[in-house]
Amino acid sequence: MSTSSPAVAVPTHWYNITADLPKPPPPPLHPGTGEPIQPADLAALFPKALIAQEAASESYIEIPEPIRDIYATWRPSPLFRATRLEQELGTAARIYVKYEGASPVGSHKVNSAVAQAYFNADDGVTTLTTETGAGQWGSALAFACAMFGIDLEVWQVKASYATKPYRRHLIETYGGTVHPSPSELTESGRAVLADDPDSPGSLGVAVSEAVEVAASNPAARYALGSVLNHVLLHQTVIGQETIAQLRAAGEDSVDVIYGCAGGGSNLAGLAFPFLREVLHERAATRVVAAEPSACPSLTAGEYRYDHGDLAGLTPLLKMHTLGQDFVPSPIHAGGLRYHGMAPLLSHAVELGYVEGQAISQQDAFAAGILFSRTQGIVPAPEACHGLAAAVADLRGSSTPTAVVLGLSGHGQLDLPAYAAYLAGELTDT
Amino acid sequence: MSTSSPAVAVPTHWYNITADLPKPPPPPLHPGTGEPIQPADLAALFPKALIAQEAASESYIEIPEPIRDIYATWRPSPLFRATRLEQELGTAARIYVKYEGASPVGSHKVNSAVAQAYFNADDGVTTLTTETGAGQWGSALAFACAMFGIDLEVWQVKASYATKPYRRHLIETYGGTVHPSPSELTESGRAVLADDPDSPGSLGVAVSEAVEVAASNPAARYALGSVLNHVLLHQTVIGQETIAQLRAAGEDSVDVIYGCAGGGSNLAGLAFPFLREVLHERAATRVVAAEPSACPSLTAGEYRYDHGDLAGLTPLLKMHTLGQDFVPSPIHAGGLRYHGMAPLLSHAVELGYVEGQAISQQDAFAAGILFSRTQGIVPAPEACHGLAAAVADLRGSSTPTAVVLGLSGHGQLDLPAYAAYLAGELTDT
Repeated sequence: MSTSSPAVAVPTHWYNITADLPKPPPPPLHPGTGEPIQPADLAALFPKALIAQEAASESYIEIPEPIRDIYATWRPSPLFRATRLEQELGTAARIYVKYEGASPVGSHKVNSAVAQAYFNADDGVTTLTTETGAGQWGSALAFACAMFGIDLEVWQVKASYATKPYRRHLIETYGGTVHPSPSELTESGRAVLADDPDSPGSLGVAVSEAVEVAASNPAARYALGSVLNHVLLHQTVIGQETIAQLRAAGEDSVDVIYGCAGGGSNLAGLAFPFLREVLHERAATRVVAAEPSACPSLTAGEYRYDHGDLAGLTPLLKMHTLGQDFVPSPIHAGGLRYHGMAPLLSHAVELGYVEGQAISQQDAFAAGILFSRTQGIVPAPEACHGLAAAVADLRGSSTPTAVVLGLSGHGQLDLPAYAAYLAGELTDT
Repeated sequence: MSTSSPAVAVPTHWYNITADLPKPPPPPLHPGTGEPIQPADLAALFPKALIAQEAASESYIEIPEPIRDIYATWRPSPLFRATRLEQELGTAARIYVKYEGASPVGSHKVNSAVAQAYFNADDGVTTLTTETGAGQWGSALAFACAMFGIDLEVWQVKASYATKPYRRHLIETYGGTVHPSPSELTESGRAVLADDPDSPGSLGVAVSEAVEVAASNPAARYALGSVLNHVLLHQTVIGQETIAQLRAAGEDSVDVIYGCAGGGSNLAGLAFPFLREVLHERAATRVVAAEPSACPSLTAGEYRYDHGDLAGLTPLLKMHTLGQDFVPSPIHAGGLRYHGMAPLLSHAVELGYVEGQAISQQDAFAAGILFSRTQGIVPAPEACHGLAAAVADLRGSSTPTAVVLGLSGHGQLDLPAYAAYLAGELTDT
């Protein structure tokens, strides 16, 4: 019998792992001075509440009622036991799946988007800017901005804007505006176009455009969908719900958590509440961060200070990085094509609480097909990486472990990638 | 505060409205003899259990455990109060939304697909055939067949096969096979192609191809996604859950139910459990069946015996029909482009328990945009028709009614239609 644990409540607080870590994460540095960044340095880009959360030291931060009100339309998100996958793998493990794809936009991204839109609206901000690649974050923020009456301008990497129109249409359906990046609307965009009028764009350029517009408009701010501490914080509703749902299902401890990691917010949101128990020596849960072998920041990157964008406008962040100018191959898991890893998650890796694992695109889609045909949900290509890591570990295992798979979103807007895989057209690079 | 009522259980039985109707619905007639059809006449197409359900007289039919087990991965489906839509409409009505889009394929179709696949597998059937237009039904059945190890062959209307590949990819991801219809694989298909090699196909031809293949293979059966009694029966989990969820939210009665109606299964599934209370004179709930003005079987069709397909191979069904050769305009709500209405729903209309209402495509998409920007869920174009009927009735209303909107699915694979609407490119025909 599948386990659905609907009696669990939506969390009232976000969990801040910083409060429980044995040593604090290295601070972000100002890109000009190289000194630790001050809250005032961030005021042009983010509202007060998010800046405070970025440096918060308390263990729990209350979730305002208007945010919980919107969370309640799809949260608590489903947790179910993947019994048919267990049978197919011939494993003695009990596999639980925490599924974020039932959200209005089909991924976990809304957990932070709703919070960011609320705190900006509460601070009098009337316009948000952001960048997006394939459009997961852009569409999540468009949803959230519609809920709180904020205008949204999205710079979408031109290659995706042209070839993957569905999420662009989703942003527009919510009332947001989408610009292909590089655009003629910013100095950053015009500079790139002057050099190469046919530039397909990149996330790095799109960040620069969105930041430039926000910084030049006092009523506008900028929003980022991963990497930063406050984004990871907002995602901790996932892990808190999972712990409560597992208890309701009679599982008091978890042996391993598997999830995908691009910027890191989805995995951190699931794992950090479990790591709280590990940090207090009440549990011994392993956390596996599955990343694409085409963009392996944890398994092949360096742990050092680096910029978050190509142009070097953002603060320097201590993280696992492939270098700010690293350009990953065009794999289908667009959400995992980032050169760095969230500083908090990188810190947890350095301390030994999280381990990276690189997964090939072929193995990822094979796991996605297996999951689709056993459990019935087509996973987002990003999420397939976490599934593949679990499948490799658990197939034929006679150890009765309890494991949790984080399924960050559905793949209904990524079906052409599945078709390409089934047709044998995908490569690993 | 939005109302989410997760403490409600998945129903253990389906509700059969036939048992409570003041007079029975007119029986289906054999296409050759014109006499009421006998169970044996259907044995080549359907498994025993479904044939029995088609003519069942008991009020409740138990849902087998393996079906409930799969239902439990997304059911009970969400019920929430649409407070932001209420504010936008300036209405005193309390608007509740029952949302089927959180299912693995994004619509209500899986409720019957899982049941049909189970009963076929239980009867030793190894292959199912079906037709699909835009692909909602085909993808739902592909999901269900994957769960029970049944091979699936889908004939998809060639126009959709070529222009709307996402749901075709979804069927293939689940392991199903998709043939563009008309195909060279059947006599019916070859006959059409001989006449017109460039035929874009139609649901009528696709039905004929799927039926022909099932009838010629003893291990194969045919599956239909709407119209028939057993399909409506399976959908009654929707309404039963809604009643329980409303009670948990403190609502003991509902004044009006709004839903879209193409073949009729989604609306019947929501409304019939409420009509049970009306039939027993314990409630006075109105039921509004919203249909496209481009395909208005209830509001402009005749109530008479007609075939379910173009070629006249199916039994004669007493229903509201625009004629078996009616070809609706190519509106985007593909699921509502059917010439007839389910006999049971038609019968309920004739008895005065359900009222039809025609909605233009423009009004439907306008309601879809309004709903997206207030409640955050982009509705399927089909579902927009029910929303539009509710919006027209409730805007500015000072009457504190309690209403339920049936939201049969999400529109993430229909986003190009929203883009066309926003660009002013849609017409009403």
